[in-house]
Amino acid sequence: MASRETIGPHPTRIEILKSAAAAFRRLGYHGATVEQIAAALHMKKGNLYYYFHNKEEILFACHQYSLERLMGLLHEVEQSGLAPDVKVRRLIVAGVHTILDELHGTALFLDLEALSPAHLKTIIAGRDQFDQGLRRLLEEGVKAGVFDRGDIKLRSFAMLGALNWIPRWYDPDGPATSQEIADRFADYLIAGLRVHEA
Amino acid sequence: MASRETIGPHPTRIEILKSAAAAFRRLGYHGATVEQIAAALHMKKGNLYYYFHNKEEILFACHQYSLERLMGLLHEVEQSGLAPDVKVRRLIVAGVHTILDELHGTALFLDLEALSPAHLKTIIAGRDQFDQGLRRLLEEGVKAGVFDRGDIKLRSFAMLGALNWIPRWYDPDGPATSQEIADRFADYLIAGLRVHEA
Repeated sequence: MASRETIGPHPTRIEILKSAAAAFRRLGYHGATVEQIAAALHMKKGNLYYYFHNKEEILFACHQYSLERLMGLLHEVEQSGLAPDVKVRRLIVAGVHTILDELHGTALFLDLEALSPAHLKTIIAGRDQFDQGLRRLLEEGVKAGVFDRGDIKLRSFAMLGALNWIPRWYDPDGPATSQEIADRFADYLIAGLRVHEA
Repeated sequence: MASRETIGPHPTRIEILKSAAAAFRRLGYHGATVEQIAAALHMKKGNLYYYFHNKEEILFACHQYSLERLMGLLHEVEQSGLAPDVKVRRLIVAGVHTILDELHGTALFLDLEALSPAHLKTIIAGRDQFDQGLRRLLEEGVKAGVFDRGDIKLRSFAMLGALNWIPRWYDPDGPATSQEIADRFADYLIAGLRVHEA
Protein backbone atom coordinates (compact mmCIF):
# COMPACT_ATOMS: atom_id res chain seq x y z
CA MET A 1 0.00 0.00 0.00
CA ALA A 2 1.17 3.51 -0.78
CA SER A 3 1.59 4.75 2.78
CA ARG A 4 2.49 8.24 3.88
CA GLU A 5 5.87 7.03 4.97
CA THR A 6 6.93 5.66 1.61
CA ILE A 7 5.65 8.31 -0.75
CA GLY A 8 8.03 11.14 -1.24
CA PRO A 9 7.33 14.64 -2.53
CA HIS A 10 7.39 13.39 -6.13
CA PRO A 11 5.29 10.23 -6.28
CA THR A 12 5.87 7.89 -9.17
CA ARG A 13 3.16 7.03 -11.63
CA ILE A 14 2.62 3.67 -9.96
CA GLU A 15 2.36 5.27 -6.52
CA ILE A 16 -0.36 7.50 -7.90
CA LEU A 17 -2.20 4.50 -9.34
CA LYS A 18 -1.99 2.61 -6.05
CA SER A 19 -3.29 5.55 -4.11
CA ALA A 20 -6.10 6.13 -6.61
CA ALA A 21 -7.05 2.46 -6.54
CA ALA A 22 -7.25 2.63 -2.74
CA ALA A 23 -9.54 5.67 -2.99
CA PHE A 24 -11.72 3.95 -5.61
CA ARG A 25 -11.95 0.94 -3.35
CA ARG A 26 -12.95 3.02 -0.35
CA LEU A 27 -15.29 5.50 -2.00
CA GLY A 28 -16.24 3.91 -5.31
CA TYR A 29 -15.07 5.32 -8.64
CA HIS A 30 -17.92 7.81 -8.81
CA GLY A 31 -17.50 8.73 -5.15
CA ALA A 32 -13.76 9.42 -5.20
CA THR A 33 -12.62 12.84 -6.36
CA VAL A 34 -9.32 13.84 -7.95
CA GLU A 35 -8.85 16.16 -4.94
CA GLN A 36 -9.03 13.20 -2.56
CA ILE A 37 -6.62 11.14 -4.65
CA ALA A 38 -4.18 14.08 -4.74
CA ALA A 39 -4.61 14.82 -1.01
CA ALA A 40 -3.78 11.22 -0.07
CA LEU A 41 -0.51 11.68 -1.95
CA HIS A 42 0.14 15.11 -0.40
CA MET A 43 0.00 16.51 -3.90
CA LYS A 44 -1.78 19.54 -5.25
CA LYS A 45 -4.56 18.67 -7.63
CA GLY A 46 -2.76 20.69 -10.30
CA ASN A 47 0.35 18.53 -9.94
CA LEU A 48 -1.70 15.38 -10.36
CA TYR A 49 -3.04 16.78 -13.61
CA TYR A 50 0.55 16.83 -14.82
CA TYR A 51 0.37 13.01 -14.90
CA PHE A 52 -3.28 12.45 -15.77
CA HIS A 53 -5.77 14.78 -17.41
CA ASN A 54 -8.78 13.51 -15.47
CA LYS A 55 -10.13 10.75 -13.26
CA GLU A 56 -11.06 8.56 -16.19
CA GLU A 57 -7.43 8.54 -17.35
CA ILE A 58 -6.40 7.35 -13.89
CA LEU A 59 -8.96 4.56 -14.00
CA PHE A 60 -7.78 3.55 -17.46
CA ALA A 61 -4.17 3.52 -16.28
CA CYS A 62 -5.16 1.27 -13.34
CA HIS A 63 -6.79 -1.18 -15.73
CA GLN A 64 -3.83 -1.07 -18.08
CA TYR A 65 -1.35 -1.62 -15.28
CA SER A 66 -3.21 -4.70 -14.02
CA LEU A 67 -3.58 -6.09 -17.50
CA GLU A 68 0.09 -5.58 -18.29
CA ARG A 69 1.06 -7.39 -15.10
CA LEU A 70 -1.27 -10.25 -15.90
CA MET A 71 -0.06 -10.51 -19.50
CA GLY A 72 3.52 -10.52 -18.23
CA LEU A 73 2.66 -13.37 -15.87
CA LEU A 74 0.98 -15.26 -18.66
CA HIS A 75 4.02 -15.03 -20.93
CA GLU A 76 6.36 -16.05 -18.13
CA VAL A 77 4.21 -19.06 -17.36
CA GLU A 78 3.81 -20.03 -21.02
CA GLN A 79 7.56 -20.03 -21.51
CA SER A 80 8.35 -21.82 -18.26
CA GLY A 81 8.36 -25.36 -19.65
CA LEU A 82 6.44 -26.53 -16.55
CA ALA A 83 3.64 -29.11 -16.57
CA PRO A 84 0.28 -27.65 -17.64
CA ASP A 85 -1.34 -27.94 -14.20
CA VAL A 86 1.68 -26.27 -12.57
CA LYS A 87 1.46 -23.48 -15.15
CA VAL A 88 -2.21 -22.90 -14.37
CA ARG A 89 -1.44 -22.95 -10.67
CA ARG A 90 1.28 -20.33 -11.07
CA LEU A 91 -1.03 -18.14 -13.11
CA ILE A 92 -3.85 -18.34 -10.54
CA VAL A 93 -1.54 -17.67 -7.59
CA ALA A 94 0.19 -14.76 -9.28
CA GLY A 95 -3.16 -13.48 -10.58
CA VAL A 96 -4.62 -13.37 -7.06
CA HIS A 97 -1.59 -11.44 -5.85
CA THR A 98 -1.91 -8.98 -8.71
CA ILE A 99 -5.60 -8.49 -8.00
CA LEU A 100 -5.21 -8.14 -4.23
CA ASP A 101 -1.78 -6.72 -3.59
CA GLU A 102 -0.97 -4.54 -6.55
CA LEU A 103 -3.91 -2.22 -6.91
CA HIS A 104 -6.13 -2.99 -3.95
CA GLY A 105 -8.32 -5.37 -5.82
CA THR A 106 -10.08 -2.66 -7.67
CA ALA A 107 -8.54 -2.24 -11.04
CA LEU A 108 -9.92 -5.31 -12.77
CA PHE A 109 -13.31 -4.88 -11.30
CA LEU A 110 -14.15 -1.19 -11.31
CA ASP A 111 -16.90 0.18 -13.48
CA LEU A 112 -15.83 -0.53 -16.97
CA GLU A 113 -18.74 1.70 -17.99
CA ALA A 114 -16.88 4.66 -16.54
CA LEU A 115 -14.21 4.28 -19.23
CA SER A 116 -14.37 6.23 -22.47
CA PRO A 117 -15.38 4.10 -25.48
CA ALA A 118 -11.82 4.07 -26.87
CA HIS A 119 -10.31 3.10 -23.51
CA LEU A 120 -12.99 0.48 -22.93
CA LYS A 121 -12.15 -1.11 -26.28
CA THR A 122 -8.46 -1.27 -25.36
CA ILE A 123 -9.17 -2.89 -21.98
CA ILE A 124 -11.63 -5.42 -23.38
CA ALA A 125 -9.13 -6.35 -26.09
CA GLY A 126 -6.47 -6.83 -23.40
CA ARG A 127 -8.75 -8.99 -21.29
CA ASP A 128 -9.62 -11.08 -24.31
CA GLN A 129 -5.93 -11.73 -24.87
CA PHE A 130 -5.55 -12.89 -21.29
CA ASP A 131 -8.63 -15.11 -21.62
CA GLN A 132 -7.15 -16.63 -24.78
CA GLY A 133 -3.91 -17.33 -22.97
CA LEU A 134 -5.68 -19.09 -20.11
CA ARG A 135 -7.60 -21.19 -22.63
CA ARG A 136 -4.35 -22.17 -24.35
CA LEU A 137 -3.04 -23.44 -21.00
CA LEU A 138 -6.26 -25.39 -20.39
CA GLU A 139 -6.05 -26.94 -23.87
CA GLU A 140 -2.44 -27.86 -23.24
CA GLY A 141 -3.59 -29.66 -20.08
CA VAL A 142 -6.31 -31.53 -21.95
CA LYS A 143 -3.84 -32.61 -24.64
CA ALA A 144 -1.40 -33.75 -21.96
CA GLY A 145 -4.17 -35.83 -20.39
CA VAL A 146 -3.94 -33.89 -17.11
CA PHE A 147 -7.23 -32.00 -17.50
CA ASP A 148 -10.57 -33.48 -18.33
CA ARG A 149 -12.13 -32.74 -21.71
CA GLY A 150 -14.91 -30.22 -21.40
CA ASP A 151 -15.97 -26.77 -22.49
CA ILE A 152 -12.71 -24.86 -22.12
CA LYS A 153 -14.27 -21.49 -22.80
CA LEU A 154 -16.91 -21.85 -20.08
CA ARG A 155 -14.33 -23.19 -17.64
CA SER A 156 -12.05 -20.26 -18.29
CA PHE A 157 -14.97 -17.89 -17.67
CA ALA A 158 -15.75 -19.65 -14.40
CA MET A 159 -12.11 -19.36 -13.31
CA LEU A 160 -11.83 -15.71 -14.27
CA GLY A 161 -15.13 -14.95 -12.54
CA ALA A 162 -13.94 -16.56 -9.31
CA LEU A 163 -10.77 -14.43 -9.47
CA ASN A 164 -12.36 -11.19 -10.60
CA TRP A 165 -14.98 -11.41 -7.88
CA ILE A 166 -12.39 -11.49 -5.08
CA PRO A 167 -12.35 -7.70 -4.61
CA ARG A 168 -16.08 -7.83 -3.82
CA TRP A 169 -15.62 -9.85 -0.64
CA TYR A 170 -11.96 -9.48 0.25
CA ASP A 171 -11.35 -7.90 3.62
CA PRO A 172 -7.74 -6.80 4.18
CA ASP A 173 -8.40 -7.26 7.90
CA GLY A 174 -10.07 -10.67 7.40
CA PRO A 175 -8.64 -14.04 8.45
CA ALA A 176 -7.28 -15.14 5.05
CA THR A 177 -4.05 -13.68 3.69
CA SER A 178 -3.72 -13.11 -0.03
CA GLN A 179 -1.32 -16.08 -0.12
CA GLU A 180 -3.92 -18.36 1.49
CA ILE A 181 -6.61 -17.15 -0.87
CA ALA A 182 -4.28 -17.72 -3.82
CA ASP A 183 -3.41 -21.26 -2.70
CA ARG A 184 -6.97 -22.33 -1.85
CA PHE A 185 -8.37 -20.85 -5.06
CA ALA A 186 -5.71 -22.67 -7.08
CA ASP A 187 -6.52 -25.94 -5.26
CA TYR A 188 -10.23 -25.66 -5.93
CA LEU A 189 -10.16 -24.28 -9.46
CA ILE A 190 -7.59 -26.84 -10.64
CA ALA A 191 -9.27 -29.80 -8.88
CA GLY A 192 -12.32 -29.19 -11.08
CA LEU A 193 -10.17 -29.40 -14.22
CA ARG A 194 -8.39 -32.66 -13.49
CA VAL A 195 -9.12 -36.05 -14.98
CA HIS A 196 -10.72 -38.17 -12.25
CA GLU A 197 -12.32 -41.54 -12.00
CA ALA A 198 -16.05 -40.87 -11.68
CA MET B 1 -37.55 -10.52 -22.18
CA ALA B 2 -40.24 -7.91 -21.79
CA SER B 3 -41.04 -7.45 -25.48
CA ARG B 4 -43.38 -4.89 -26.96
CA GLU B 5 -45.82 -7.62 -27.83
CA THR B 6 -46.27 -8.98 -24.33
CA ILE B 7 -46.47 -5.81 -22.29
CA GLY B 8 -49.93 -4.36 -22.05
CA PRO B 9 -50.91 -0.80 -21.25
CA HIS B 10 -50.56 -1.49 -17.52
CA PRO B 11 -47.24 -3.28 -17.02
CA THR B 12 -46.78 -5.25 -13.83
CA ARG B 13 -44.08 -4.45 -11.35
CA ILE B 14 -41.99 -7.37 -12.57
CA GLU B 15 -42.38 -6.27 -16.21
CA ILE B 16 -41.03 -2.90 -15.19
CA LEU B 17 -38.07 -4.51 -13.43
CA LYS B 18 -37.28 -6.69 -16.45
CA SER B 19 -37.41 -3.74 -18.79
CA ALA B 20 -35.28 -1.64 -16.45
CA ALA B 21 -32.75 -4.45 -16.07
CA ALA B 22 -32.52 -4.68 -19.87
CA ALA B 23 -31.89 -0.93 -20.08
CA PHE B 24 -29.25 -1.11 -17.32
CA ARG B 25 -27.60 -3.95 -19.18
CA ARG B 26 -27.56 -2.05 -22.45
CA LEU B 27 -26.68 1.42 -21.21
CA GLY B 28 -25.22 0.89 -17.75
CA TYR B 29 -26.99 2.01 -14.59
CA HIS B 30 -25.62 5.53 -14.82
CA GLY B 31 -26.29 5.68 -18.56
CA ALA B 32 -29.93 4.59 -18.50
CA THR B 33 -32.55 7.23 -17.75
CA VAL B 34 -35.99 6.79 -16.21
CA GLU B 35 -37.36 8.24 -19.45
CA GLN B 36 -35.76 5.42 -21.46
CA ILE B 37 -37.04 2.76 -19.06
CA ALA B 38 -40.54 4.23 -19.28
CA ALA B 39 -40.38 4.62 -23.06
CA ALA B 40 -39.42 0.96 -23.52
CA LEU B 41 -42.61 0.10 -21.61
CA HIS B 42 -44.70 2.60 -23.58
CA MET B 43 -45.33 4.37 -20.31
CA LYS B 44 -45.20 8.01 -19.41
CA LYS B 45 -42.39 8.83 -17.00
CA GLY B 46 -45.04 10.10 -14.57
CA ASN B 47 -46.79 6.73 -14.56
CA LEU B 48 -43.54 4.94 -13.81
CA TYR B 49 -43.11 7.21 -10.79
CA TYR B 50 -46.35 5.75 -9.50
CA TYR B 51 -44.43 2.50 -8.95
CA PHE B 52 -40.98 3.78 -8.11
CA HIS B 53 -39.88 7.17 -6.86
CA ASN B 54 -36.57 7.18 -8.69
CA LYS B 55 -34.03 5.09 -10.57
CA GLU B 56 -32.29 3.97 -7.40
CA GLU B 57 -35.55 2.42 -6.16
CA ILE B 58 -35.81 0.47 -9.41
CA LEU B 59 -32.26 -0.78 -9.02
CA PHE B 60 -32.94 -1.77 -5.42
CA ALA B 61 -36.12 -3.60 -6.48
CA CYS B 62 -34.10 -5.51 -9.13
CA HIS B 63 -31.60 -6.62 -6.50
CA GLN B 64 -34.35 -7.58 -4.10
CA TYR B 65 -36.21 -9.55 -6.73
CA SER B 66 -33.10 -11.57 -7.65
CA LEU B 67 -32.25 -12.18 -4.03
CA GLU B 68 -35.77 -13.33 -3.19
CA ARG B 69 -35.69 -15.76 -6.09
CA LEU B 70 -32.32 -17.10 -5.00
CA MET B 71 -33.39 -17.43 -1.37
CA GLY B 72 -36.54 -19.26 -2.50
CA LEU B 73 -34.36 -21.65 -4.51
CA LEU B 74 -32.10 -22.18 -1.54
CA HIS B 75 -34.98 -23.11 0.77
CA GLU B 76 -36.50 -25.43 -1.82
CA VAL B 77 -33.17 -27.18 -2.25
CA GLU B 78 -32.49 -27.37 1.48
CA GLN B 79 -35.83 -29.06 2.10
CA SER B 80 -35.59 -31.40 -0.88
CA GLY B 81 -34.01 -34.33 0.95
CA LEU B 82 -31.68 -34.88 -2.03
CA ALA B 83 -28.02 -35.85 -1.76
CA PRO B 84 -25.73 -32.88 -0.99
CA ASP B 85 -24.06 -32.83 -4.41
CA VAL B 86 -27.44 -32.96 -6.15
CA LYS B 87 -28.62 -30.08 -3.98
CA VAL B 88 -25.60 -27.97 -4.92
CA ARG B 89 -26.15 -28.86 -8.57
CA ARG B 90 -29.78 -27.76 -8.41
CA LEU B 91 -28.81 -24.51 -6.75
CA ILE B 92 -26.14 -23.71 -9.35
CA VAL B 93 -28.39 -24.57 -12.28
CA ALA B 94 -31.34 -22.58 -10.94
CA GLY B 95 -29.00 -19.77 -9.90
CA VAL B 96 -27.62 -19.44 -13.46
CA HIS B 97 -31.17 -19.29 -14.81
CA THR B 98 -32.11 -16.62 -12.29
CA ILE B 99 -29.05 -14.57 -13.18
CA LEU B 100 -29.43 -14.93 -16.94
CA ASP B 101 -33.10 -15.34 -17.67
CA GLU B 102 -34.92 -13.41 -14.98
CA LEU B 103 -33.40 -9.96 -15.05
CA HIS B 104 -30.99 -10.02 -17.95
CA GLY B 105 -28.01 -10.85 -15.89
CA THR B 106 -27.73 -7.42 -14.46
CA ALA B 107 -29.40 -7.34 -11.11
CA LEU B 108 -26.84 -9.18 -9.04
CA PHE B 109 -23.97 -7.45 -10.63
CA LEU B 110 -24.90 -3.82 -11.14
CA ASP B 111 -23.19 -1.06 -9.24
CA LEU B 112 -23.91 -1.74 -5.65
CA GLU B 113 -22.39 1.69 -5.01
CA ALA B 114 -25.37 3.26 -6.74
CA LEU B 115 -27.64 2.03 -3.95
CA SER B 116 -28.49 4.24 -0.98
CA PRO B 117 -26.71 3.20 2.23
CA ALA B 118 -29.90 1.70 3.73
CA HIS B 119 -30.69 -0.26 0.55
CA LEU B 120 -27.09 -1.40 0.24
CA LYS B 121 -27.22 -2.74 3.79
CA THR B 122 -30.38 -4.72 3.00
CA ILE B 123 -28.90 -6.23 -0.16
CA ILE B 124 -25.60 -7.14 1.47
CA ALA B 125 -27.47 -8.78 4.35
CA GLY B 126 -29.53 -10.76 1.82
CA ARG B 127 -26.43 -11.87 -0.05
CA ASP B 128 -24.80 -12.92 3.18
CA GLN B 129 -27.81 -15.13 3.94
CA PHE B 130 -27.48 -16.77 0.54
CA ASP B 131 -23.74 -17.26 1.05
CA GLN B 132 -24.44 -18.86 4.45
CA GLY B 133 -26.95 -21.21 2.84
CA LEU B 134 -24.47 -22.30 0.18
CA ARG B 135 -21.89 -22.93 2.88
CA ARG B 136 -24.37 -25.09 4.82
CA LEU B 137 -24.82 -27.23 1.70
CA LEU B 138 -21.06 -27.53 1.25
CA GLU B 139 -20.66 -28.55 4.89
CA GLU B 140 -23.41 -31.12 4.49
CA GLY B 141 -21.48 -32.57 1.57
CA VAL B 142 -18.24 -32.69 3.56
CA LYS B 143 -20.02 -34.46 6.45
CA ALA B 144 -21.58 -36.92 4.01
CA GLY B 145 -18.11 -37.67 2.65
CA VAL B 146 -19.09 -36.48 -0.84
CA PHE B 147 -17.06 -33.27 -0.79
CA ASP B 148 -13.44 -32.92 0.10
CA ARG B 149 -12.51 -31.12 3.31
CA GLY B 150 -11.21 -27.65 2.61
CA ASP B 151 -11.88 -24.01 3.20
CA ILE B 152 -15.64 -23.88 2.69
CA LYS B 153 -15.82 -20.11 2.89
CA LEU B 154 -13.24 -19.57 0.17
CA ARG B 155 -14.82 -22.25 -2.00
CA SER B 156 -18.23 -20.64 -1.66
CA PHE B 157 -16.71 -17.29 -2.67
CA ALA B 158 -15.10 -18.89 -5.71
CA MET B 159 -18.44 -20.46 -6.72
CA LEU B 160 -20.39 -17.25 -6.22
CA GLY B 161 -17.75 -15.31 -8.13
CA ALA B 162 -17.98 -17.66 -11.09
CA LEU B 163 -21.77 -17.23 -11.11
CA ASN B 164 -21.89 -13.50 -10.44
CA TRP B 165 -19.36 -12.85 -13.19
CA ILE B 166 -21.54 -14.46 -15.88
CA PRO B 167 -23.30 -11.21 -16.83
CA ARG B 168 -19.90 -9.72 -17.70
CA TRP B 169 -19.27 -12.10 -20.59
CA TYR B 170 -22.67 -13.58 -21.42
CA ASP B 171 -23.83 -12.88 -24.94
CA PRO B 172 -27.51 -13.65 -25.51
CA ASP B 173 -26.62 -14.24 -29.19
CA GLY B 174 -23.59 -16.39 -28.33
CA PRO B 175 -23.25 -20.12 -28.87
CA ALA B 176 -24.08 -21.31 -25.32
CA THR B 177 -27.66 -21.34 -24.05
CA SER B 178 -28.33 -20.52 -20.42
CA GLN B 179 -29.08 -24.22 -19.87
CA GLU B 180 -25.68 -25.22 -21.27
CA ILE B 181 -23.93 -22.62 -19.16
CA ALA B 182 -25.83 -23.83 -16.10
CA ASP B 183 -24.92 -27.49 -16.73
CA ARG B 184 -21.26 -26.89 -17.54
CA PHE B 185 -20.80 -24.54 -14.58
CA ALA B 186 -22.38 -27.10 -12.27
CA ASP B 187 -20.09 -29.84 -13.70
CA TYR B 188 -16.96 -27.80 -13.18
CA LEU B 189 -17.75 -26.17 -9.84
CA ILE B 190 -18.89 -29.45 -8.28
CA ALA B 191 -15.99 -31.48 -9.70
CA GLY B 192 -13.64 -29.28 -7.70
CA LEU B 193 -15.53 -30.06 -4.49
CA ARG B 194 -15.58 -33.83 -4.73
CA VAL B 195 -13.42 -36.26 -2.84
CA HIS B 196 -10.94 -37.75 -5.30
CA GLU B 197 -7.95 -40.00 -5.14
CA ALA B 198 -4.94 -37.75 -5.70
